[in-house]
Amino acid sequence: MTEHLNAALEYARANRAGFLQEFIEFVRIPSVSTAPEAKADIQRAAQWVANQLRNLGMKNVSVFPTAGHPVVFGEYLGAGADKPTVLIYGHYDVQPAEPLELWHSPAFEPTVRGENLYGRGASDMKGQVMITIKAAEALARTGELPVNIKFIIEGEEEVGSPNLDEFIRTHRDLLACDYALNTDTGMIGAEVPTITYGLRGLAYFELRISGPDHDLHSGIFGGAVHNPAQVLCELIAGMHDAQGRVTLPGFYDRVRSISAEERQELARLPMDDEFYRQQTGAPALFGEADYTVAERVGARPTLEINGLLSGFTGEGSKTVLPAKAMAKISMRLVPDQDPEEVHHQLTQYLERHAPPTVRWELLKMAGGPASISDRHIPGVVAMSQALEATWGKRPLFRREGGSVPVVGQMQKILGIESVLTGFGLPDDNLHAPNEKIHLPTFYRGIEAIIRFLVFVGA
Amino acid sequence: MTEHLNAALEYARANRAGFLQEFIEFVRIPSVSTAPEAKADIQRAAQWVANQLRNLGMKNVSVFPTAGHPVVFGEYLGAGADKPTVLIYGHYDVQPAEPLELWHSPAFEPTVRGENLYGRGASDMKGQVMITIKAAEALARTGELPVNIKFIIEGEEEVGSPNLDEFIRTHRDLLACDYALNTDTGMIGAEVPTITYGLRGLAYFELRISGPDHDLHSGIFGGAVHNPAQVLCELIAGMHDAQGRVTLPGFYDRVRSISAEERQELARLPMDDEFYRQQTGAPALFGEADYTVAERVGARPTLEINGLLSGFTGEGSKTVLPAKAMAKISMRLVPDQDPEEVHHQLTQYLERHAPPTVRWELLKMAGGPASISDRHIPGVVAMSQALEATWGKRPLFRREGGSVPVVGQMQKILGIESVLTGFGLPDDNLHAPNEKIHLPTFYRGIEAIIRFLVFVGA
Repeated sequence: MTEHLNAALEYARANRAGFLQEFIEFVRIPSVSTAPEAKADIQRAAQWVANQLRNLGMKNVSVFPTAGHPVVFGEYLGAGADKPTVLIYGHYDVQPAEPLELWHSPAFEPTVRGENLYGRGASDMKGQVMITIKAAEALARTGELPVNIKFIIEGEEEVGSPNLDEFIRTHRDLLACDYALNTDTGMIGAEVPTITYGLRGLAYFELRISGPDHDLHSGIFGGAVHNPAQVLCELIAGMHDAQGRVTLPGFYDRVRSISAEERQELARLPMDDEFYRQQTGAPALFGEADYTVAERVGARPTLEINGLLSGFTGEGSKTVLPAKAMAKISMRLVPDQDPEEVHHQLTQYLERHAPPTVRWELLKMAGGPASISDRHIPGVVAMSQALEATWGKRPLFRREGGSVPVVGQMQKILGIESVLTGFGLPDDNLHAPNEKIHLPTFYRGIEAIIRFLVFVGA
Repeated sequence: MTEHLNAALEYARANRAGFLQEFIEFVRIPSVSTAPEAKADIQRAAQWVANQLRNLGMKNVSVFPTAGHPVVFGEYLGAGADKPTVLIYGHYDVQPAEPLELWHSPAFEPTVRGENLYGRGASDMKGQVMITIKAAEALARTGELPVNIKFIIEGEEEVGSPNLDEFIRTHRDLLACDYALNTDTGMIGAEVPTITYGLRGLAYFELRISGPDHDLHSGIFGGAVHNPAQVLCELIAGMHDAQGRVTLPGFYDRVRSISAEERQELARLPMDDEFYRQQTGAPALFGEADYTVAERVGARPTLEINGLLSGFTGEGSKTVLPAKAMAKISMRLVPDQDPEEVHHQLTQYLERHAPPTVRWELLKMAGGPASISDRHIPGVVAMSQALEATWGKRPLFRREGGSVPVVGQMQKILGIESVLTGFGLPDDNLHAPNEKIHLPTFYRGIEAIIRFLVFVGA
């Protein structure tokens, strides 16, 4: 085992330049899942992943069509029935790159500057997918894979995986495994290996307010009608109280409270106010009273405005009284909140508070429940050992604020837990301009996953 | 006099097709004053107006450069010193045409449908400028002009006329006159000739809120910082109270109250709630408690949100916590509010209410004071007679909600009153998609102005 491990690590170190070239190829494909015009690029990205899986010796490699973007699958079952089977999850789709003018190098022309590779998806999560593929390749090229592996790499994570639930249900047997490896969470810092055991869920909406049936001249009609942009602002302003709590009716009813023991553990994370101030650049932090930042972002639900649009937004002035106004509004959920219930709560809030001077419409865009994983399954233990062997220190365990709905789906449909880790850093600018990945951490990630697969199979 | 009048009216009727062709030429020039890229079109529009003035026999026709867009001037003083001099004001610039996709025919391809000509600026105010030019032409081609006329046609009205004040100051002698004719206000209906005696002023701002120094992932950072879009909404929501009153400190201190007699007169206007509901298409009207709609849009100040922009506004969902948010905010002012004071009031409001969790910046975009004109000057009397002769009924007198800052500037600098009328209709979609002018009213407007010039010179 040690011999194979060392050979695989050696292979990974010797092939860094080649890995980087392939990684750049992958990031270059603008596989933006929200963009209807990106269908061809999405297909290209799926085929690219399928080729990687074939090249490293996966069998039954398939690009499964869905009602949306395809799912890539491949498996290796040669380790035998007495070895565990790990289902490696990833996604090849990325967030939109807008606003493009804020990128220092084009989003889809991956560029190395210093120790980082910049490009949309470099960290979230093409880099993470590459890490698992290259770890498997390193082991496959230097011997027989020590565990059974199945890859499931989807193309709709950034739009809430609308077709993944059905795919998992339909392919329950194909996906049968002992547990999943999901590298879609991040690290606290480059020297702080991290395992995530709690994830927030998501409920994402578009709220549309309309008043007049056409844009009006604000001089001639200002004073006659309720300005839809003003109404939108009033409705949004009412969604939080002065203590930073969300006011939707019943929003906190099903929120699992944080135990004293867990609060102590979260307090040990090296993520104090100063850490968040530096990471965000905000003049001051803000959030629900009575909770620390680490608790607020990990274990408490939040409601965020993701976008606003109304009327004239160009340079200069236009005295329009806009006919309509739109907001993108999303909630991060914690156990045991339910996205459907939150949808109902927001609807109720609007029914109670939207004035009769406007019409409103609420569109449901995406959603998934929160999850908490068992920290004692063999996969988590193996990952803990693998990270410790790679970084020379025990990993930290934390809850993370982002949503990985697939973890809940796999728990529900396949009855399996997920080992949650990842090699992105807090300053990777996920979902923002100048997304990047820290290349030394990327290479270390490959070594950590090689060790994980060896320890799991031991 | 009657003979010349009849000949001029005859000329105007015989030349309608030609007038329309020239009008279409004028609207076709996309002289959008807010657009930096439209400089050449602005110049083209100014030269086009200058040529019209030359062709009808105006002397000293000049296109005066300013720090912004040029002012077109031309004069005819041949009526002699015993005749009054009328200064005819207009503007050749137009509002932006966006959103383009809502136009049924392209904004700058003027199109006749039914009784209307559609195109940006058709009503506001290229059509009104054409009416005054063609009225003067009709009189000039059928005899000697019965009054002295000066034209001043500017190119920056839609951006708040930033350079007109200085132009009027510098050319005080050139612009000397008995009173001004300003056709930049509208009619209550096609069968309701209207003279405006009160106009609201304008103070226009852009408010920028910023929090984090870059867009954040709403999962990873939601709960850590104050969302700038939420803060913007909270600040905007606080700008009105539950009675629809503006809450800026001191906002109503200098507002001249409406006399009982004026309230009675305004109540006679055929503009009830049903009229405004039909004009706007809003599900219900809204505004400051204790005032009728006609009072609210004419004689009371308002605060409107003209635009909102933050974060992700495209199709689908993006879980961004935006770094910044922007609103265009403008106030319509009434006598004796001062735009500078209102700027100070808004600044004070923000200083008091903006939380320390964000940074904010307030940009002043445009502004001008409100005005009330004397209803008894000879020019207004002549206009009243001209409208009555043309429509067969006495005109209504009203206050209008829009701003025509030049009226206040001319009052202040030249010491003259303005005769305020115009031939746009409430459903002309000013500043909105599908702007149009009602052609029968356009032709009637030319006849009314012919009569006005004859009555003034009699």
